[in-house]
Formats: sequence, C-alpha cells, structure tokens
Amino acid sequence: MPSKIDLPPHNARAYLEPGPIVLVSSRHQDETNVMTLGWHTIMEFTPSLVGCMISAGNHSFELVRQSGECVINLPTLDMIDTVVRIGNSSGRSVDKFAANGLTADPAERVAAPLIRQCYANFECRLVDDALVDRYSFFIFEIVKAHRARRPRNPQTIHYTGDGEFMVAGKMVSRRALFRPAMLGNGRS
Amino acid sequence: MPSKIDLPPHNARAYLEPGPIVLVSSRHQDETNVMTLGWHTIMEFTPSLVGCMISAGNHSFELVRQSGECVINLPTLDMIDTVVRIGNSSGRSVDKFAANGLTADPAERVAAPLIRQCYANFECRLVDDALVDRYSFFIFEIVKAHRARRPRNPQTIHYTGDGEFMVAGKMVSRRALFRPAMLGNGRS
Repeated sequence: MPSKIDLPPHNARAYLEPGPIVLVSSRHQDETNVMTLGWHTIMEFTPSLVGCMISAGNHSFELVRQSGECVINLPTLDMIDTVVRIGNSSGRSVDKFAANGLTADPAERVAAPLIRQCYANFECRLVDDALVDRYSFFIFEIVKAHRARRPRNPQTIHYTGDGEFMVAGKMVSRRALFRPAMLGNGRS
Repeated sequence: MPSKIDLPPHNARAYLEPGPIVLVSSRHQDETNVMTLGWHTIMEFTPSLVGCMISAGNHSFELVRQSGECVINLPTLDMIDTVVRIGNSSGRSVDKFAANGLTADPAERVAAPLIRQCYANFECRLVDDALVDRYSFFIFEIVKAHRARRPRNPQTIHYTGDGEFMVAGKMVSRRALFRPAMLGNGRS
C-alpha cells in the first residue's frame, strides 16, 4: 500500500457508511490485538462519530474499554483471507499481527497501531460508553483519518454471513438530482 | 417485484450488515411517511436488533418515536432515482408514497406500511430509546421479515456521500476458511 494522505475525519463516512468489514486494532499496556467488525454505523459528521458493536466475547473488548481507544482499519479484497483468519482466531492465543504478516505503524493520536496494509485508518477515541454494558456498543470519535492516495474507490468487502462477502461494485452518480445543501462529505 | 417469502428475523443481517441505503416507512395516527437512511447497524441476532440514526430534523422522527414502530425497506438499483428523490424532499410538504409511485402494503406486526417495490421489508418495534435524546439513535427489534424470492443477491445501493452510490458487486465465498461455529445467518 503506497504512503497515505490525511483525510478530514468527517469524510470517513465516505468509506464507512457503505458498510464494509473493518479491522479494529487496539492496545492496552503491553498488549496489542486486532479483530474483524461488521456491525458499525456512522452517527455524526462533526464531531465525526462512529458506533461499533464489540461483543464482550472478543479479546479486544477489554483492550478497547480499558484504553478508551482503537483504530478502525479498512481492508480491501486482496486482504480477504487475512480478514477471515483474523475473524476465526482469538488474540488470547495468537499474536494476530505476526501470524498474518500485518505491519503495525504508529498512530498520531492514539496508542493503538495503524495497519499499514489497509486502505484507510481511522484513529478513534471512546467518547460514550453508555451502552457498553447493555449492548457492547461503543461510541467513538474519529480524531485522525488517513487513506491511500489511490484508487479513489477501494474494493471493500461487505459481509453477508455464512462465509460469503459482497465486493464493492461500480459507482453511480446521481449528483444532478440532489439539492446542493445535501451534497458534500464524499470521496472527492 | 414478485410476491415475497418470510425470512427468519435473524437472517436480516445478510441484507443489512453489508450497509445498503434503506427506506424507513412510518405511520402515526393518520400520517404516513418514508425517509432514506444510511446510518444503521445490526446489534444482535436473537433478538434481531438494529440501531438506526434518525435525526430529529426528519419529519419521520416524531412518527417513529410516537408510534414506536417502523418498517426498514431494502431498495435496489432500479429504485435509485426514487431513493434520491425521497432523500431530497420532506414529508412535511409532500406525500412521498404518492409522489414516487410507491405501493403501501399492510405489515403483519406493525401499523407502518411495507413498500411493495422494495426487495425486502423488515417490520420493527422500538425496544430501547436510551440514546434517542442525545444522538437520535433508535434501537429496534425486527419482529417480522420478508424478502423477494429472487434474485438471491439483490443489487443494493450503498451511499458514499456527495451524490454518489456504490452498487453491490460480485459475491465471494470463503466458507472453507471458517470455523463451523462461525458460519450461518446468511442468505442461504
């Protein structure tokens, strides 16, 4: 993956709203982990909020809760086998960075690492844990965002259950039908 | 759209987790409305929970809050212009069903209507409003689900901002790499 450029945090929606599987990296004290996540939603542009279901059965749950931080990394089709392996193993028994040949780059605003091989990286701080105990639902603010310079439209993968993924297809513009106030916050 | 078949509610994830734009229909007393929604996430399989951001600026906000119900309808590429028109108009001034030629079919478990032209319809009851005042985040239980008999893989549309949509592309299976306990809850 070529070197990355900064992205305004509110433009993270352009990559997360379409619903891709993401890799969540976390670090607490001396421990680092990474997990797959398909249950997330954008919640606000400014501040740039994203809600994530990180179930308590995941080894990452306590790392994220204790540190109050994570990085949401955006993998593409070339990483699909890695994504599946990460989703089918536990950080309790495996160093998932080493086992999957992932490179941990330092983040700017959080201790959790960026995954270099991913198309984009969103550094997150936990801003609201009101629903963590009841639903394992974490509300993060994206405080720093990075993306690869190209391509404009990454081949993200979208999980449909039962071992099957939908791959991001063609782009279609309907800009001409929008009211101007409804535009913006996209990939351009 | 041909007649629909029942879908177990926990299989709704197969269609919602990939992150499509959906149409939320609502009814309260004598008023019916429909809005576009891109900010949603699955939260649980059983009960089948889905969290949705319905901002207070939408005419649908009070209809959903007061009735405690809605239907999440899944449109496909053939409906993209309708989706955009719905997202760029307000139910305060327009009957969006009539203006867009949508057919309101009766739901089984809620008063809000099913949109016949959509590929799937998920009847929802509001089960937790703890984050409605702070974030406009509604947690619904899908109590009844319907989908078209075919195709297996609908051409859903996924909003990336700025008037542009990503269309669902090819399907890729990695079943062979999954632990058996991690499979299920898919389209099959």
